[in-house]
Amino acid sequence: MALSSYYPQLVAQRRELHQWPEPGWTEFTTTWYLVQKLKAWGYQVLVGTKVVNPEAVLGRSEKEVEAGLAAARAHNVPEEFLKATEGYTGAVGILDTGRPGPTMAMRFDIDCIPVQETADPNHVPNKEGFRSKHDGYMHACGHDTHMSIGLTVAKWCVDHKDELCGRVKIVFQPAEEGVRGANAVAASGVLDDVDYFLGSHIGMVAKYGEVVIDPYGFLCTTKYDVTYTGKPAHAGVEPNAGRNALAAACSATLQLLGIPRHGKGMTRVNVGMLNAGKGRNVIPPNATMVMEVRGETGEINDFMAEQAMNIIKGNAISYGVEYSVSKMGAACDMKNDPEMIDLLRETAKTIPEIKTITESANFGGSEDASLLAKRVKEHGGKVAFFVNGADRKAGHHQFNFDVNEPALDTGFQMFAGMVKRILARK
Amino acid sequence: MALSSYYPQLVAQRRELHQWPEPGWTEFTTTWYLVQKLKAWGYQVLVGTKVVNPEAVLGRSEKEVEAGLAAARAHNVPEEFLKATEGYTGAVGILDTGRPGPTMAMRFDIDCIPVQETADPNHVPNKEGFRSKHDGYMHACGHDTHMSIGLTVAKWCVDHKDELCGRVKIVFQPAEEGVRGANAVAASGVLDDVDYFLGSHIGMVAKYGEVVIDPYGFLCTTKYDVTYTGKPAHAGVEPNAGRNALAAACSATLQLLGIPRHGKGMTRVNVGMLNAGKGRNVIPPNATMVMEVRGETGEINDFMAEQAMNIIKGNAISYGVEYSVSKMGAACDMKNDPEMIDLLRETAKTIPEIKTITESANFGGSEDASLLAKRVKEHGGKVAFFVNGADRKAGHHQFNFDVNEPALDTGFQMFAGMVKRILARK
Amino acid sequence: MALSSYYPQLVAQRRELHQWPEPGWTEFTTTWYLVQKLKAWGYQVLVGTKVVNPEAVLGRSEKEVEAGLAAARAHNVPEEFLKATEGYTGAVGILDTGRPGPTMAMRFDIDCIPVQETADPNHVPNKEGFRSKHDGYMHACGHDTHMSIGLTVAKWCVDHKDELCGRVKIVFQPAEEGVRGANAVAASGVLDDVDYFLGSHIGMVAKYGEVVIDPYGFLCTTKYDVTYTGKPAHAGVEPNAGRNALAAACSATLQLLGIPRHGKGMTRVNVGMLNAGKGRNVIPPNATMVMEVRGETGEINDFMAEQAMNIIKGNAISYGVEYSVSKMGAACDMKNDPEMIDLLRETAKTIPEIKTITESANFGGSEDASLLAKRVKEHGGKVAFFVNGADRKAGHHQFNFDVNEPALDTGFQMFAGMVKRILARK
Amino acid sequence: MALSSYYPQLVAQRRELHQWPEPGWTEFTTTWYLVQKLKAWGYQVLVGTKVVNPEAVLGRSEKEVEAGLAAARAHNVPEEFLKATEGYTGAVGILDTGRPGPTMAMRFDIDCIPVQETADPNHVPNKEGFRSKHDGYMHACGHDTHMSIGLTVAKWCVDHKDELCGRVKIVFQPAEEGVRGANAVAASGVLDDVDYFLGSHIGMVAKYGEVVIDPYGFLCTTKYDVTYTGKPAHAGVEPNAGRNALAAACSATLQLLGIPRHGKGMTRVNVGMLNAGKGRNVIPPNATMVMEVRGETGEINDFMAEQAMNIIKGNAISYGVEYSVSKMGAACDMKNDPEMIDLLRETAKTIPEIKTITESANFGGSEDASLLAKRVKEHGGKVAFFVNGADRKAGHHQFNFDVNEPALDTGFQMFAGMVKRILARK
Repeated sequence: MALSSYYPQLVAQRRELHQWPEPGWTEFTTTWYLVQKLKAWGYQVLVGTKVVNPEAVLGRSEKEVEAGLAAARAHNVPEEFLKATEGYTGAVGILDTGRPGPTMAMRFDIDCIPVQETADPNHVPNKEGFRSKHDGYMHACGHDTHMSIGLTVAKWCVDHKDELCGRVKIVFQPAEEGVRGANAVAASGVLDDVDYFLGSHIGMVAKYGEVVIDPYGFLCTTKYDVTYTGKPAHAGVEPNAGRNALAAACSATLQLLGIPRHGKGMTRVNVGMLNAGKGRNVIPPNATMVMEVRGETGEINDFMAEQAMNIIKGNAISYGVEYSVSKMGAACDMKNDPEMIDLLRETAKTIPEIKTITESANFGGSEDASLLAKRVKEHGGKVAFFVNGADRKAGHHQFNFDVNEPALDTGFQMFAGMVKRILARK
Repeated sequence: MALSSYYPQLVAQRRELHQWPEPGWTEFTTTWYLVQKLKAWGYQVLVGTKVVNPEAVLGRSEKEVEAGLAAARAHNVPEEFLKATEGYTGAVGILDTGRPGPTMAMRFDIDCIPVQETADPNHVPNKEGFRSKHDGYMHACGHDTHMSIGLTVAKWCVDHKDELCGRVKIVFQPAEEGVRGANAVAASGVLDDVDYFLGSHIGMVAKYGEVVIDPYGFLCTTKYDVTYTGKPAHAGVEPNAGRNALAAACSATLQLLGIPRHGKGMTRVNVGMLNAGKGRNVIPPNATMVMEVRGETGEINDFMAEQAMNIIKGNAISYGVEYSVSKMGAACDMKNDPEMIDLLRETAKTIPEIKTITESANFGGSEDASLLAKRVKEHGGKVAFFVNGADRKAGHHQFNFDVNEPALDTGFQMFAGMVKRILARK
Repeated sequence: MALSSYYPQLVAQRRELHQWPEPGWTEFTTTWYLVQKLKAWGYQVLVGTKVVNPEAVLGRSEKEVEAGLAAARAHNVPEEFLKATEGYTGAVGILDTGRPGPTMAMRFDIDCIPVQETADPNHVPNKEGFRSKHDGYMHACGHDTHMSIGLTVAKWCVDHKDELCGRVKIVFQPAEEGVRGANAVAASGVLDDVDYFLGSHIGMVAKYGEVVIDPYGFLCTTKYDVTYTGKPAHAGVEPNAGRNALAAACSATLQLLGIPRHGKGMTRVNVGMLNAGKGRNVIPPNATMVMEVRGETGEINDFMAEQAMNIIKGNAISYGVEYSVSKMGAACDMKNDPEMIDLLRETAKTIPEIKTITESANFGGSEDASLLAKRVKEHGGKVAFFVNGADRKAGHHQFNFDVNEPALDTGFQMFAGMVKRILARK
Repeated sequence: MALSSYYPQLVAQRRELHQWPEPGWTEFTTTWYLVQKLKAWGYQVLVGTKVVNPEAVLGRSEKEVEAGLAAARAHNVPEEFLKATEGYTGAVGILDTGRPGPTMAMRFDIDCIPVQETADPNHVPNKEGFRSKHDGYMHACGHDTHMSIGLTVAKWCVDHKDELCGRVKIVFQPAEEGVRGANAVAASGVLDDVDYFLGSHIGMVAKYGEVVIDPYGFLCTTKYDVTYTGKPAHAGVEPNAGRNALAAACSATLQLLGIPRHGKGMTRVNVGMLNAGKGRNVIPPNATMVMEVRGETGEINDFMAEQAMNIIKGNAISYGVEYSVSKMGAACDMKNDPEMIDLLRETAKTIPEIKTITESANFGGSEDASLLAKRVKEHGGKVAFFVNGADRKAGHHQFNFDVNEPALDTGFQMFAGMVKRILARK
């Protein structure tokens, strides 16, 4: 196995980032870590409303942002930096070679998910001492590896600046989980001058030594928060006087999970969280459901959303409760540009670690990189997203998720190889 | 309308207590308020494990207790007193007349429920400026009136000590909501020497000017906390790899609400709270249900409990999840002693405000005074529980619950009248 | 045990009737049996629209009526009689003593329920050879005993005609199950001249040797048939194109069973039958639910009905299907006249077999005798309904239901004793 | 548009067959129609256990078979023929050219589905007077067109016998709906000598003028009948004494529809029929569910089946009822042989009506031709299944399904063209 000379950096950064996972829109400590590195390597760095359009922000909780800021202060992140963020996480690093040429953006997502990391002593982060120190949160979707790859590519670009032309944009996007962040990053316009856009995910449908250069099946998705409001009553004395919001949510959940499969393609539906009720002997007057639908195409996703809205309304009528629905996130489908596919194939062929170049495979999930790609396309750019294979111990989002670290090197080499091809100095 | 001279005291105390409602097992500020009064009037006061047997405590959360202690400190409750409580709320005030005679205990419950008080400006506590200052909590079950009546009776006993014999025990019981507290107060033995036990509830099935001297229909009840534990998975990539604890809880809830009615008498079932899930796009690996069943008799309550256990198990199998069940509270049925009924009737007849003496009416709820009564009976004492009618604006436990304050006077006069009869100096 | 001389007749008739149970509105063979006896004993007999008002008929199926007529023909019931029924079952026998005096009506219901009688060899009808010969149907509610008591009382009146004054009306009411028949019998006006109305049920809340002379808890009830109409689609190719009526009915059923208990009294709800779907691989476009609600009072029954209507509508919205609701039956509550209670008490005291006279007990079910009683009361008559205790092997409507036959004698003696008192020749 | 000279025959036969649709295993009148034609054209015809192995029959109802036989008698189908069928429908016609050569089987399915044909006057079968005369049944899946194509190919082979070698087997398979019939036809061995096997479906994923020569996505499927057995009880008197099988089935249905989607491919689940209950006021002691699961692969289908079994068991526990499960049908996936794909492409190119030759498309349903293909492959034969595009008015299995009749001609020419290529006389 031939790993690049950047491998130690890849592993070190990943292990550091793995220890302080932060949920979407609260990645202040993380952003600070990234920004420091970029600045040290000579990047111009944009943060705050320069990279996030507040009007297009989806699914951001002020309360959680406060907690994220408090944690950042506890981690000694400078107050000046926090002020510069204007309360919005994420950053874009820009490296201008000074030579005319295209602008190439590479996107890396930076948030974690709210899963408690396993205590299993054989879990590598436990064995090697880099377990999450943020109780209840974990980089169980591999964004720690994405960031480390992003930083390493950034460093590689500096190291090879003389061989390059045009401009590099390293995009550290917040809040990918829940497909919340990209909508506002796209709307900031920071990618509007981009000629080539490249993104990637680790693991997923590919094993270590394999890359998928034209994945399909990026599920369109819409995220909703639903609240039911009923009427409390003493559950012993006059249960009939109540209006049971919890029961409405439970019934809606079962009906939502039962939305018919679609003949034209994949669908998904999940009620990820349900919180309801005020006390054991009170007919529950309140319920909140955190949910999402997905579809292989926009048409299918619309079908799912329409069925969901009917169900949410129907149960309000059944149980005599009020309801409200808020849209919390969105992603669309994505199609790689043929020129980019060719470049990815070429690049992959030069990397000895890659044994299998899979043209096409079902991604089977949602990615809000799709919204960035859509924006770039609308402005005439070309886009691609590849899957960087890895060996994992458990599925994404599970408490014992982990990938083999050499996979970071493959990912890094793919990105660096693409830069070399796209921004090659004439 | 002829109100007693104690009416101003009744109203003042009630309004003060209404402003700082505390949920069960956290009533440190409340207990301190009560203890101060009792001590000032010359009562011997027992607190801590003298009135609560820790081994018999049901449904007490250390986390909530901590919050209650913190609030008490914020209210300047002396540290010394908090230490004396040993972490357990509630108090018993003892007045010994010095003359031989029976021991009479009167029980008043002191906790509130987690309901946000209405902002309606016509709601009396809003209009008169004594709205709850404890956000999310409210004396919506009238325990503020119970405490005020208890304190006023305590004061009356001191004022009329010369006319009395034997001993008075004023029992301020914590955590009646959820029928959690009585089990441990009974087990403390503090009532084992009691010859006459009297309790009461305001409002319920009787209007102002009415007392019910032999209510029936104290529903037997058992309280449970149920947890389902499944397996998280990415809801987009491989929903099949998850085990959905939230769905199991939703289905269990619908099935629980549908447990058959019983041909032999009233039943109740409520899932009062449901909290589940880790994130929008994670198949929910966890769910907690806070629930209860009730039955008109022990047999019917057992039927409900058995059906509930089947349902909880059945859904674990349906969804491939694990489950656990904890018993959190209990109450039994209660039957007034004929001698006590006669005394209550006699007393009521002497109170001009009381226009209607109802012999019997359906209480239709659960009361853990029943467990104290049971303990007293087991030690040879006599027991009674009456309903002190009141005009209410809304049902118990509703956010706009309120009673007409003259009803406190009727209640007070009933208790005082009973003391006069039972402890009359020979 | 002292049984009357009519006991052999009681047993013989009951066993004959037990063998050919007929569901409501199809009791042609049964009616013919009853009419033959009444005519042989000299009664004037009314049938057809003289006893049933077609415009007030609830829950009658032409298809089932056809089957009942065909069965009657197979049992050699004369065509002339079938013509006289005009397609409506039931009969009223009138005995005029020729002497002035009040008119007394006694009501006996004649239909069965669709339960397959047990094959258990120890089941008395099996052991004694009088098992139901009508596959899938059984007199599992004791109407065979009611009819036999009715016939025997009819015979007794003839035998004792010289001691009586006024007129006797023996009312054999069809279709009590589902509380369908009484509405139309009341509306026929056949009871409008009645001064005293008496009805009874065997078993229920009383054991052999006990009568309940003032039962309460006749549950108000409304019966509905509900249909959902969706859209079929191939379940493999495009499940999304269907609208699932079966799923709507299933969800409605779970929600209906979960309608809250009522603080003011007993409730019931049952979806007794559900038939849905066209084929295994077709999204089900159709579903029919046969259901009922009950409440201890009209108010509570109305609460149940309103909740049910909300639920039926709500699920139509959730699943995108159409729905329709038809009212199929009804009953109200019933209160015995004090004079009648006194007469029942007096009568019971003279019957040696009766050891226990229970003043009051919870009937806990619905009875459409209540609608006949209501009509009689509206025309100035007095009414009563008593429970004739019996020892049963299993609950009513169960496949192994049976009563001890001496209970028929008690019932007969109660009715005859009441006639003796009410119509005693001056 | 250039239609073949066989077009009038195609239309006439199709319209005749459309008028008497028969559900699976009851196609006696249909089989007689087919057999008469084949015999008239000189085919050797096999029926009964020569083409159906009784031990491998799935999902056949004796009661429905009786109804099918009675209908056949009413249609004057000779008794002798019915005897020859041994109670099993379907037929295989064999034409031996007398010249050495391969054996080629073509399969056409003959049953209908239980859908009531629309009354819409614009529906072609209504407008042209060939509407279904079998109330409640309809050829809404196009098997009438399949049969007509099959017969016409049979006639074509006779007409062109001199140009052919080897043997032709025209397989008219019963009971394709519910994937019931092929299992027993395969097990009969009638295809064990087949060298080339060809099947087809009309419509589905292709429009008129298009053929799909290598469809994928033949969903694996398993069909189940599930029964729950509870305990009846009077729903008013003692609902608690019952065990509600209907409620168990309803809850199971909702849970079944909610089985998670699968990350590796398509899934399906349908409860196509549910029949439960004995009467409105009886707690329902019985319920039968007619259901199926599907999966894109065997692994996914197994996942669905396992989840379904857990759910069926779980609800039995929740509701305290017994259950049983019977397997009623099965199909597997299918993959066309490359040689056959080439021949199909070649053939399609020669047919002017075909404008689009689609290599690959998602079939998205189950087909038990897959079991026949599997058997042929196991004996060394080659197999293919193509989709014969058609313009339809509504989706398959819908009450207003219809295809444009010229599509029959395309299908016929594809089959005839394949025979010409495979059995070309040397």
